[in-house]
Amino acid sequence: MSQFQLSMDPHDDVNHNVVNHNVVNHNVVNHNDDDEENDIENPGDLDFKEEERWGSMSERNMSSMKMPLLRKRTNTTSQIAVVGANSCPIESLDYEMIENDLFKQDWRSRKRVQIFQYVFLKWGLALLIGLATGLVGFFNNIAVENISGFKLLLTNKLMLEGSFFKAFLAFAGCNITFAAAAGVLCAYIAPAAAGSGIPEVKAYLNGVDAPSILAPSTLFVKIFGSVFGVSAGFVVGKEGPMVHTGACIANLLGQGGSRKYGLTWNWLRYFKNDRDRRDLITCGAAAGVAAAFRAPVGGVLFALEEAASWWRSALLWRTFFTTAVVAIVLRGFIQYCWTGKCGLFGQGGLIMYDVSKEVSSYGGYDILAVIFLGVVGGVLGAFYNYLIDKVLRTYSIINEKGPSFRVLLVIVISVLTTCCAFGLPWLAKCTPCPIDAGSKCPTVGEIGHYKRFQCPPGYYNDLASLFLTTNDDAIRNLFSNAIIREFQMSSLFIFFVAIYFLGIITYGIAVPAGLFIPVILGGSVYGRIVGRVFHSLSVLDTGLFSLLGAASFLGGTMRMTVSLCVILLELTNNLLLLPLVMIVLLISKTVADCFNHGVYDQILKLKGLPYLEAHAEAYMKHLVAGDAVSGPLVTFSGVERVETVVHALQSTGHNGFPVINEPPFSDTPELCGLVLRSHLLVLLKAKYFSHDSRLSGRDIRKKFSPFDFAKPGTGKGLKLEDITITEEEMNMYIDLHPITNASPYTVLETMSLAKAKILFRQIGLRHMCVVPKSQGRSPIVGILTRHDFMPEHILGLYPHMRQHK
Amino acid sequence: MSQFQLSMDPHDDVNHNVVNHNVVNHNVVNHNDDDEENDIENPGDLDFKEEERWGSMSERNMSSMKMPLLRKRTNTTSQIAVVGANSCPIESLDYEMIENDLFKQDWRSRKRVQIFQYVFLKWGLALLIGLATGLVGFFNNIAVENISGFKLLLTNKLMLEGSFFKAFLAFAGCNITFAAAAGVLCAYIAPAAAGSGIPEVKAYLNGVDAPSILAPSTLFVKIFGSVFGVSAGFVVGKEGPMVHTGACIANLLGQGGSRKYGLTWNWLRYFKNDRDRRDLITCGAAAGVAAAFRAPVGGVLFALEEAASWWRSALLWRTFFTTAVVAIVLRGFIQYCWTGKCGLFGQGGLIMYDVSKEVSSYGGYDILAVIFLGVVGGVLGAFYNYLIDKVLRTYSIINEKGPSFRVLLVIVISVLTTCCAFGLPWLAKCTPCPIDAGSKCPTVGEIGHYKRFQCPPGYYNDLASLFLTTNDDAIRNLFSNAIIREFQMSSLFIFFVAIYFLGIITYGIAVPAGLFIPVILGGSVYGRIVGRVFHSLSVLDTGLFSLLGAASFLGGTMRMTVSLCVILLELTNNLLLLPLVMIVLLISKTVADCFNHGVYDQILKLKGLPYLEAHAEAYMKHLVAGDAVSGPLVTFSGVERVETVVHALQSTGHNGFPVINEPPFSDTPELCGLVLRSHLLVLLKAKYFSHDSRLSGRDIRKKFSPFDFAKPGTGKGLKLEDITITEEEMNMYIDLHPITNASPYTVLETMSLAKAKILFRQIGLRHMCVVPKSQGRSPIVGILTRHDFMPEHILGLYPHMRQHK
Repeated sequence: MSQFQLSMDPHDDVNHNVVNHNVVNHNVVNHNDDDEENDIENPGDLDFKEEERWGSMSERNMSSMKMPLLRKRTNTTSQIAVVGANSCPIESLDYEMIENDLFKQDWRSRKRVQIFQYVFLKWGLALLIGLATGLVGFFNNIAVENISGFKLLLTNKLMLEGSFFKAFLAFAGCNITFAAAAGVLCAYIAPAAAGSGIPEVKAYLNGVDAPSILAPSTLFVKIFGSVFGVSAGFVVGKEGPMVHTGACIANLLGQGGSRKYGLTWNWLRYFKNDRDRRDLITCGAAAGVAAAFRAPVGGVLFALEEAASWWRSALLWRTFFTTAVVAIVLRGFIQYCWTGKCGLFGQGGLIMYDVSKEVSSYGGYDILAVIFLGVVGGVLGAFYNYLIDKVLRTYSIINEKGPSFRVLLVIVISVLTTCCAFGLPWLAKCTPCPIDAGSKCPTVGEIGHYKRFQCPPGYYNDLASLFLTTNDDAIRNLFSNAIIREFQMSSLFIFFVAIYFLGIITYGIAVPAGLFIPVILGGSVYGRIVGRVFHSLSVLDTGLFSLLGAASFLGGTMRMTVSLCVILLELTNNLLLLPLVMIVLLISKTVADCFNHGVYDQILKLKGLPYLEAHAEAYMKHLVAGDAVSGPLVTFSGVERVETVVHALQSTGHNGFPVINEPPFSDTPELCGLVLRSHLLVLLKAKYFSHDSRLSGRDIRKKFSPFDFAKPGTGKGLKLEDITITEEEMNMYIDLHPITNASPYTVLETMSLAKAKILFRQIGLRHMCVVPKSQGRSPIVGILTRHDFMPEHILGLYPHMRQHK
Repeated sequence: MSQFQLSMDPHDDVNHNVVNHNVVNHNVVNHNDDDEENDIENPGDLDFKEEERWGSMSERNMSSMKMPLLRKRTNTTSQIAVVGANSCPIESLDYEMIENDLFKQDWRSRKRVQIFQYVFLKWGLALLIGLATGLVGFFNNIAVENISGFKLLLTNKLMLEGSFFKAFLAFAGCNITFAAAAGVLCAYIAPAAAGSGIPEVKAYLNGVDAPSILAPSTLFVKIFGSVFGVSAGFVVGKEGPMVHTGACIANLLGQGGSRKYGLTWNWLRYFKNDRDRRDLITCGAAAGVAAAFRAPVGGVLFALEEAASWWRSALLWRTFFTTAVVAIVLRGFIQYCWTGKCGLFGQGGLIMYDVSKEVSSYGGYDILAVIFLGVVGGVLGAFYNYLIDKVLRTYSIINEKGPSFRVLLVIVISVLTTCCAFGLPWLAKCTPCPIDAGSKCPTVGEIGHYKRFQCPPGYYNDLASLFLTTNDDAIRNLFSNAIIREFQMSSLFIFFVAIYFLGIITYGIAVPAGLFIPVILGGSVYGRIVGRVFHSLSVLDTGLFSLLGAASFLGGTMRMTVSLCVILLELTNNLLLLPLVMIVLLISKTVADCFNHGVYDQILKLKGLPYLEAHAEAYMKHLVAGDAVSGPLVTFSGVERVETVVHALQSTGHNGFPVINEPPFSDTPELCGLVLRSHLLVLLKAKYFSHDSRLSGRDIRKKFSPFDFAKPGTGKGLKLEDITITEEEMNMYIDLHPITNASPYTVLETMSLAKAKILFRQIGLRHMCVVPKSQGRSPIVGILTRHDFMPEHILGLYPHMRQHK
């Protein structure tokens, strides 16, 4: 009722006396904020308007290799176009970034207990995410070290016995078994778990929820698939998957599993909104990086620089707490492992690739070498991205044919990788063991710099030392200065080419595959080669050149700056090298940016996820907001016939409908606000209908708690089919005011489209109302959603803009 | 003209056919974006509306000690209320965060050369800022080390000769001379240079430009005042001033000095807008931190976490580049100093307080000790902030009496500091030199752990080792584990109390004074005391306890997290301690947040700077945008009489005026856009008037280049008094369309005030138009500016909201 008083108030005087305004009038504004907050999303529903649009788009640009995979095959393909999944279109989450509903409630009814619950739970969840991610990260490490350690020990033992064929069989058998295990898990149980997962997390935090990307099954497959994938000797990392794992854990904890958890479930109602979910996922992603690299500060910065689209300082604070917990958990476990109870995972502290012992003085020639390193690293990185894009597009054709084809592809790549790892070392000459070798030469165990391979006693094969070991140990070997001249140039070169191309062809297959380790590995070999070339001029350790090479290659592919810098710092514990790492990252990023986008952005685009960039395209400045509005606008009256509502919900896929007050409820037609599909469904289900067109808002409001409109977990929302409405009810009326968000964000139709887009993106909107400039017309011109700002859509409407893109 | 076509277009159909829309129509939107970009600010002008409001505010809350200093004495006091300055009110910058005007130009006229110039200059300026700040930082270091080194050597020499009184005279003489020099510089030349400067930089980046805070004179005084202040033995740091220095340097470089620089000046026109200026200042602040702590990554994070209000990833990238340059410059200079050509500034690398050699293993008891450290550090920090607030309010009474009183206050505090430094060591017992002392005992030179002071040969005075040295060396002594038991508990305790209170009483005086060093110093003593208490249980080095104590105290006062963590890491080069530092920061911040705000926020509030917080207050949810609109609204017609415009400019202090199109220029009255005072002045000066009311926009537009409307430097804008308009001209007409921003941000009057505030803050607006909900009324209800969102204003209008604050 009170809301109506407000909207019917004759505000005819421009400078109306504000002091006399009664505050009680405004409770509704507050109430409606609550509603808006609880954006229920029905992930199964398809925005038909969107579908049509994508459909027409795809007819326009059939220039195959250039277009996003998803658009090309709108209805037949998966959301994970690259690996494929069950056919399901993309839908958008588009957050309304407003305060948590708890604090929105009337201060008269706000309960201290609830605030305590909320704050307690917020930090409790951060703690839990940290603990769980730390635990998983540790488990991951231990499992990989033990499984691949066992494999390598077996192979090494058979090699030392001289039975090369047996050794190959054992090696290949292990590899292919693990690879097939990872492939089967990934292809049959959770295709969304394939790949790095960072692009999907990034898209989620931008408001695009790819189906089942954070589901429990994905989490399960991500963890075990990653362990098997890395153990299978693929040139993949477990770091990207850890980020995804962290996000999945955060999502799972935030949802509380299922309804059967009683109290926990009840408390978790505070987190059933977009903003809190997004915050949790951000914490999870940061925790994932922290666990993967044992780099807590790097994790926070990664979340800030790469993952998150919206950031608040409160979030900095919470992610920082989460990663601190991860660091402490990891440190505790690692300390426990010093007792030798973790099997083959014995040594190693919090620093993964410690180079703090190496001398890091450098002179003018070193700076020159570093600049060269940066430039070439940038070019190599950009080329890497280019090739990955091409390979992913090719693989998607295979992956679409079905899960069995995906597993087959995994096995083929596994065989190829195995052959490279076991075959290429034969090309290397045997090197006599150095007299002053720090460690035993040739190595007996699974780690160590000096693998004997086919060599006679007293000799070692340097290429085998790189190939027949875990990726982590290979990086450690390359970073170390212990063996300055032990790697022959030819070996380094062979290893570089192999790793570079194996990394590219491995990424698109159906196993969880991180990009960090392949890139660091490739970069460190390349850096070592450059270091050897400049050896006579430079004073810097060759091991440090490796580190700089890794930095340059990382900068060239991922295009991050501060977070990479801090992660590398935390990985290697050598602060004195910081200025050089900064230069190299800056140069390689700048060079690579001349060619193409970062690898994650490229994958996002490739998958056709409607990622909303922070900036507006140049041509948008030549359009106004009214130009981007398209499709028929469906509006409701403040008190609407049930049949009209049901029909609108059935016939359109819109998630938001403007509500317009018309006489007799107002003097002139005016925009009352925006109502969400999900809230309409809740209201329809409750069946608070009346026989005549009258305001029944106050009664309705009493019967609902704000949490009735809380956003349910993925796939758990109400559907129109769940509601049965009789013929008689169809002719009744429903008062939409109680669930109408009376404060929608609006722009005038003459607002520059570029500015409208920036507004949309910065506030993190889901719907933006376009209102007319002149009077005497309908009070709303149209609604802009995320898809209306996509370049594809706008260029579709105005093809002549394309030339000025 | 084309703009008019657009606005007169009868858009009566809601779903107008967008594809048929002609793009040519929209060029004007683009053009008007240009205009809006070039927000000229007239810093001298006072927003009269604001003044009235503050005036009425101050009458309401006369509960003295609680209210901001500036509000209490609106017209009599300075912007730097604490130290005082020439009487000048605060005015707001309020950025319109839109793209740089260069890229806004019509793509047909956009010149590649201009883009190249812009990009080249953008990076060139970042490079220059880095170089200059690095240079100044290095100069600062060298000057301080040499001046205070000379002073300490002299004192030490006289002490060793046994002439204590002479030594005291020399010590006190030096101190008071330097202090007076700093005080005179600061009080007479640039009062804005007093204090840390971080709150002012923070306010600038939020859109509040305190007068002359970034002026060249401020820069000059900041550099030399800081050198003298630190050399005078005050308990102040040079770190906060370095941040301010960096910001000043950035401002100076961005403005290009003066018009006489020809080409440079011309190129710099691209940076004459709020956004680019803000970006430069952000880079400058980051460079300042990087130079002060030799912590490049910490600098970036400081800018991100503490300084900046708006952040884009492009900025991360540019600040990172700037701090990398600083790091390289500093490293180059420091390497040069190893040759011994820098006087007393001889040793030291990039790491200021290196503790990487100390053993950083820790057990369960250490964690307990660390938690205790964090809790007490938080309490101490909060109490520190509380006392600083009280002292600043007291000092402001003295400071207001005139520059000579300010200098007097400086001298009084200097005498007090000198007496403490020279008097308190007499309380300490002489300790026999340890047999295995690494360095010479007692120390002969100006540094070293073992000062002899009054002790017989073979003995040393531990308190003198802390007091009679530079702050940096005192911190180094406290952090080092070389002298585990050499500090007596009583000495530590005396030193802690002295530093804690000296730090508090020193901050408000008229010298550039950083807070970092006093806090780190106090914290490290306190940490060492706790370390000694827990000594029997813990395994951690006492020096590391010092570091953790410093972290806890920093967390308790400044309330930063990630940036402090990284700065401490880069200061001490001990990555293994990271988890402990994180815990301690989290705990101390959490504890201190229970009591009051961070010290910088407190100073901001104390100075009455209208800082716009990122969140909305709870009571704003009970109000709507229309409620906050106050004061008479002055609007113009699209073609307006010159007299009306001049009168409006004379009689109001508004910076923005809505332009309304009325018949015959449109069918119904409609909002055409917003025109800025500064643009009006440019147009008036050019005198493109017509005798009758007609559209002359196209002619006018041809005669201006976008850069004619570029925002001039502080104090350089056009003033109304500079323009003489004849009686005849007064009766002529002026077409406002060419300079009207046709895309103002609008909200409906029924929009929740909380949401409107978040919109205002997130987009970084300066003016927000409130439009009516119902038709048949004036097309604009009012304008909201920064001041309308200030809690003081809203609570002034709605005093009953206060209880629910």
